[in-house]
Amino acid sequence: MNRKHNFGAGPGILPESALQKAAADILNFNNSGMGVLEISHRSKDFEAVLQKAKSLVKELLKVPDTHEVLFVQGGASTQFAMVPMNLLKKKAAYIDEGAWSNKAIKEAKLFGEVSVLASSKDKNYSYMPKGYTIPTDCDYFHITSNETIHGTQVKEFPASPIPVVCDMSSDIFSRPVDVSKFDLIYAGAQKNMGPSGVTMVIIKKDIVGTHGKTLPTMLDYKTHLENDSLYNTPPVFGILVIMYTLEWLKSIGGVEGMQKINQQKFDLFYGEVDSNPMFVGTAAKEDRSPMNACFLLNDSSLDEEFLAMTKAAGIIGIKGHRSVGGFRASMYNALPLDSVKALVQVMKEFANVKA
Amino acid sequence: MNRKHNFGAGPGILPESALQKAAADILNFNNSGMGVLEISHRSKDFEAVLQKAKSLVKELLKVPDTHEVLFVQGGASTQFAMVPMNLLKKKAAYIDEGAWSNKAIKEAKLFGEVSVLASSKDKNYSYMPKGYTIPTDCDYFHITSNETIHGTQVKEFPASPIPVVCDMSSDIFSRPVDVSKFDLIYAGAQKNMGPSGVTMVIIKKDIVGTHGKTLPTMLDYKTHLENDSLYNTPPVFGILVIMYTLEWLKSIGGVEGMQKINQQKFDLFYGEVDSNPMFVGTAAKEDRSPMNACFLLNDSSLDEEFLAMTKAAGIIGIKGHRSVGGFRASMYNALPLDSVKALVQVMKEFANVKA
Repeated sequence: MNRKHNFGAGPGILPESALQKAAADILNFNNSGMGVLEISHRSKDFEAVLQKAKSLVKELLKVPDTHEVLFVQGGASTQFAMVPMNLLKKKAAYIDEGAWSNKAIKEAKLFGEVSVLASSKDKNYSYMPKGYTIPTDCDYFHITSNETIHGTQVKEFPASPIPVVCDMSSDIFSRPVDVSKFDLIYAGAQKNMGPSGVTMVIIKKDIVGTHGKTLPTMLDYKTHLENDSLYNTPPVFGILVIMYTLEWLKSIGGVEGMQKINQQKFDLFYGEVDSNPMFVGTAAKEDRSPMNACFLLNDSSLDEEFLAMTKAAGIIGIKGHRSVGGFRASMYNALPLDSVKALVQVMKEFANVKA
Repeated sequence: MNRKHNFGAGPGILPESALQKAAADILNFNNSGMGVLEISHRSKDFEAVLQKAKSLVKELLKVPDTHEVLFVQGGASTQFAMVPMNLLKKKAAYIDEGAWSNKAIKEAKLFGEVSVLASSKDKNYSYMPKGYTIPTDCDYFHITSNETIHGTQVKEFPASPIPVVCDMSSDIFSRPVDVSKFDLIYAGAQKNMGPSGVTMVIIKKDIVGTHGKTLPTMLDYKTHLENDSLYNTPPVFGILVIMYTLEWLKSIGGVEGMQKINQQKFDLFYGEVDSNPMFVGTAAKEDRSPMNACFLLNDSSLDEEFLAMTKAAGIIGIKGHRSVGGFRASMYNALPLDSVKALVQVMKEFANVKA
């Protein structure tokens, strides 16, 4: 098949090998005479998928034994509430660094006091706040590792005297992280892991159930930890695709190998942005995300013309988020270097045409 | 492919035509050069899927304009909490008719007073309670239309002076229902609709947002109603499979046509149970569900032998739920009449061998 250069921000591009396996499984899974959508979540066949997906997460991210991997539903948007429901006793510390952290803050305020330690709202979230002090009198510190809409990424996580919670939805598995430094990591699957409808949670086991409240069963991490993500019917197919995607990731060298490839894509793309007189990047240089690159044409009256040219080259999904405009090239793990080459080629041609 | 006779209780059998279309879409959706797992949930392609799925629900169930169809995540287990969070002000009335209603009751008690109007626990949930009076001083009346584990079904919904909430997870789309009589219907997709990971809600619009509370954003029906199920990234693939499954349902005559076929399967299966001296049905005759038929061998020492014989005939998933034992033949919409014939044939042969 002639695959498009898919720069979509998510749900985004997935490895073709994972898609091929998943498509075959829908018709006949493990030669069982049943498709994978039709098997019991308590069958041995699915149990093997769940355990394999979990063990790949643990292997690729070097998850220590103190932590467990959960698969839940509801997206990061549900985690915005689950985190404070489970961890906020009196006060929590948040960084306001973009649209997603902003949503997390709003939700946390429903459950207790929120101290916003720093904000980059003053410059339209174009940079990552730094140099703040994490107070000791808060229950946890919340940070978003990558802001999809603004194209910024936390390069170095601050040392914290209190538990750290991190939304890694848009850069999970794109680089190594020291999981032991986080008490809770959550990520919607639909960028670097699999289809929408699954949320991965990596949680330090000893913080589970410390809330002392009566929570709705499905919103208590304890339920999912004690039942190994099988309290109720999980999103079977999504977990299967995660398994295949992580197998692919392992085959290309894991998160360490992936980071090198992502760096190549980053260097190629931003090399062009910084040298091409037609374009300008919007994120602060030191905070630029390899996952989402936001950029503008210096002359926005040419936007439609540029879009048409990218479209003709088979490039999809580079329109900026409806809330900020401009362009955004999302370069998730599964996006090949060749796709970035194709985009850069169009940017060069566009400059030539317009010069 | 040689498809198994899949009597699994859910996730269960789906129409082969829906699976074939979904598998093809994973590789290339609408000839877009992208798989359906890789497209934006805000793309025109997905918007068309969402609207088609919704309009098929409305058409097949004759949903009145007073109601809206939502697709959310978290399964019926999450609805067990969302319903009281959104509707319980002081007291709610529930029927205790099986394992699922029992879970719904436990969850509702976290949010207010619960009056259990009737229970069939005295006879191991083998019948549906009847003849109770629904009080006027409750905020709503909750009933489970089909108890998957016990094989019972509500044949006639009681007239109610207060709003009616119904869990239809295991018999939605298996028969016509008068949606106008319900204020809220919810159903996990993984029986008659599609894969696990999507929950359908049909809600009367004027009860949305009447709670007067500050709820977590994702747990407020208002969020999903106002954003047409697109507040956050929905389970794109699950909604696609629902669309295809409902197209298939429409093609075979809608819920009215389906009910006739389900009745044929029911008559064939229970005709055998009632005439074969080896077997006995466990649900009260008048409450037997066409979706889940629970039965025992009179001599349980023969269980393994019978199971082996069904397995040899390509029959899957008839072991009873781990909490009740025995056997259960789930005969969801997509299960062909031929599969029931195959099971009945084995039951006959088993009686012959053992006679």
